Amino acid sequence: MISRVLAADLPRHVGEQVRIAGWLHRRRELKSVTFLIVRDRSGLAQAVLPAPAQAGEPVQDLREETVIQVAGTVTASAQAPGGVELTEPVITPLSGPAAPPPFDLYRPAVAASLPTILDHAPTTLRHPVLKAGFEIAAASAAGFRDAMDSLGFTEVHTPKIVESATESGANVFGIDYFGRPAYLAQSPQFYKQALVGVFERVYEVGPVFRAEPHDTARHLAQYTSLDAELGFIADHRDVMAVLRETIAGMAAAAGARARAGLELLGVTPPAVPRRIPEIRFADAQELIAGQAGRDPRGEPDLSPADERWLGEWALREHGSEFLFVTGYPMAKRPFYTHPDPGRPGYSNSFDLIFRGMELVTGGQRLHRHADYLAALAERGDDPRPYAGYLQVFEHGMPPHGGFAIGLERWTARLTGAANVREVTLFPRDLHRLRP
Amino acid sequence: MISRVLAADLPRHVGEQVRIAGWLHRRRELKSVTFLIVRDRSGLAQAVLPAPAQAGEPVQDLREETVIQVAGTVTASAQAPGGVELTEPVITPLSGPAAPPPFDLYRPAVAASLPTILDHAPTTLRHPVLKAGFEIAAASAAGFRDAMDSLGFTEVHTPKIVESATESGANVFGIDYFGRPAYLAQSPQFYKQALVGVFERVYEVGPVFRAEPHDTARHLAQYTSLDAELGFIADHRDVMAVLRETIAGMAAAAGARARAGLELLGVTPPAVPRRIPEIRFADAQELIAGQAGRDPRGEPDLSPADERWLGEWALREHGSEFLFVTGYPMAKRPFYTHPDPGRPGYSNSFDLIFRGMELVTGGQRLHRHADYLAALAERGDDPRPYAGYLQVFEHGMPPHGGFAIGLERWTARLTGAANVREVTLFPRDLHRLRP
Repeated sequence: MISRVLAADLPRHVGEQVRIAGWLHRRRELKSVTFLIVRDRSGLAQAVLPAPAQAGEPVQDLREETVIQVAGTVTASAQAPGGVELTEPVITPLSGPAAPPPFDLYRPAVAASLPTILDHAPTTLRHPVLKAGFEIAAASAAGFRDAMDSLGFTEVHTPKIVESATESGANVFGIDYFGRPAYLAQSPQFYKQALVGVFERVYEVGPVFRAEPHDTARHLAQYTSLDAELGFIADHRDVMAVLRETIAGMAAAAGARARAGLELLGVTPPAVPRRIPEIRFADAQELIAGQAGRDPRGEPDLSPADERWLGEWALREHGSEFLFVTGYPMAKRPFYTHPDPGRPGYSNSFDLIFRGMELVTGGQRLHRHADYLAALAERGDDPRPYAGYLQVFEHGMPPHGGFAIGLERWTARLTGAANVREVTLFPRDLHRLRP
Repeated sequence: MISRVLAADLPRHVGEQVRIAGWLHRRRELKSVTFLIVRDRSGLAQAVLPAPAQAGEPVQDLREETVIQVAGTVTASAQAPGGVELTEPVITPLSGPAAPPPFDLYRPAVAASLPTILDHAPTTLRHPVLKAGFEIAAASAAGFRDAMDSLGFTEVHTPKIVESATESGANVFGIDYFGRPAYLAQSPQFYKQALVGVFERVYEVGPVFRAEPHDTARHLAQYTSLDAELGFIADHRDVMAVLRETIAGMAAAAGARARAGLELLGVTPPAVPRRIPEIRFADAQELIAGQAGRDPRGEPDLSPADERWLGEWALREHGSEFLFVTGYPMAKRPFYTHPDPGRPGYSNSFDLIFRGMELVTGGQRLHRHADYLAALAERGDDPRPYAGYLQVFEHGMPPHGGFAIGLERWTARLTGAANVREVTLFPRDLHRLRP
């Protein structure tokens, strides 16, 4: 049998007899000719045959989404996709006859509501526009890894079933672990910190779980976290420098590896400035108070409106779609956050705002055992549930810090998806547990 | 401040004033001189200072595993690791004084039992011998991804919380999902099949969960599964060809990216033959019956002893540490397995045996909706719990198949670890839920 040629490679085979295979994307019957558009992982290809089909020919019964194989001659044709089409095609169905998808996958726009798309995701994700988001996500994750590898990080895989819900008491899923209670990990935070003691620089690409009771466009019960942690830093600024390289790598990888998907969606990856502009949390509040017609000073965190305003400000003043906000108040940061030695009440932490929305949270962590005990005591927390976590800090841990990027959130911002579920394969939320 | 130099890079800085940082791996006091061995992510470096240390000098109180920074002059020294040492060192501790680890990390051999190693994993994994296994695992996973990428596969991330435990009723962890029952995914099997309909070729690197009630050296409650699935195959042999490329890529990546770790353990990655030898299940049983002094014919699966014998046979007869066993009986394969059209009762499936133990299971899957219904009916299974899974087969699915490799099992075989827990970061099993 002739080996299969991908649609995108057909122009290199003009004049040859080839075989393509894919889904029948569209059957168009004109008066004297029938076009079959075949979709494979590389794109679309056109086969042309005389119409109407003869009675008894299988093509007459072929419905869209049936998997077919088409043997034919590659012929130049200015109007066809890629400038070629298959003539004198011989068609063989490879699947049973396809039931109609919930909406026409061949139409350029996605003509369905989000619940319809998600209920039938195994089929609807075939639509090129929906599929493109996941190509961009995959390319971005590859860019993350390549950046990490080139910066000397080691990839790790940590437990997703944990003994206690230490990072924050709420929002954890309980699990029956051989008759004992256990929990799904909300983040690899404690493990990646401990592993700084082994590898100095570690990263993980893996699922994290939040029993998120809010039904919003940006929260999921499971998402893919791109986690990094590194030791031997001076302070959080060393973490920000690594994050800048990583984000630049992700944007570059999306541009290089998912170009077709980006073109289809009409989006371009952002330019990541060599030096991302920065503003301190307190200065950001001053700026907003002075220019935005409202006064957020005294608030312990930025509101979504604040983040939007700062995003616009960074674009206007610095020509950057990215902005680092540094030095958040300790009050709203987790107990392992390292304080700013020079400014009581503030921390060596940061958020990275991308297009007016928080994309990444990170910072320097405490690294001395006594500091952890003091931090927990100050918050009135019982140190006992943290004993396993804190143990490693008795055995020599360097100053360290890290960050976590939500892959789906990054992809949503990049593609302009209004809801993070559009760029999540089979999302899980308060209401959704299938497919 | 002078920027930090890694231990492995010191030979390129002879005569220069540099700064290194890491863990005090070993302090050795001789009559007239004290050696400090510093361990960082790249290896070991030696600093030398006059001994005994002057009273009041911090070095006198430094215990192993304390994180220190050493500034000094790089000086050639034939006896030192890498042929250089730091002279006239100035030492600054970066962590609090370190408590003693559960065993001496500086001794070449790991002098501790497995439970001790695992109970104190955040500290004990710092031992270079234990750490090496994880460097090899990370390199292998990178090799898996590189192979997949070069073969046109798309990386996906699928749900780990699922509505029903469809693949096999037993051994699933139950979870409280917003008050509803749900389960941890035992494999991405159904999702990766569905995604063949979107991307044709997909892979996932992620955790899978088995409520494994047996306490063995090779089973874990969570492990890292390297999953692949591809469409438009003729049969399982196309899957085997992709697996061969993938395994070769993993072995090559381990050799290239984890060379130091392999050398430390004294192991070499296996040679993967261009064509891995194959034997049919039934022929393998005949062979064993004829040559091994026992008769496994009639058994529906190979025993561990059978696999060991076949591994030795393949090495002896074919000079290969790998052996494909193909055509397992349908009876012991999951319901989605594609039968061998020419041999009733046998399947288009395979196992890959590596060094006498099953490493990979794979095969061709059913791809027609009617075949799924018939397969379930034949086993007396109710099709209703599978409705969501089966839906996609009504919308056109090509012939497809795939495989899954357990990363920890691969690493254990590669390193010769007797227990898979030695190469699992913070393993989870029947008894172990911490650290």
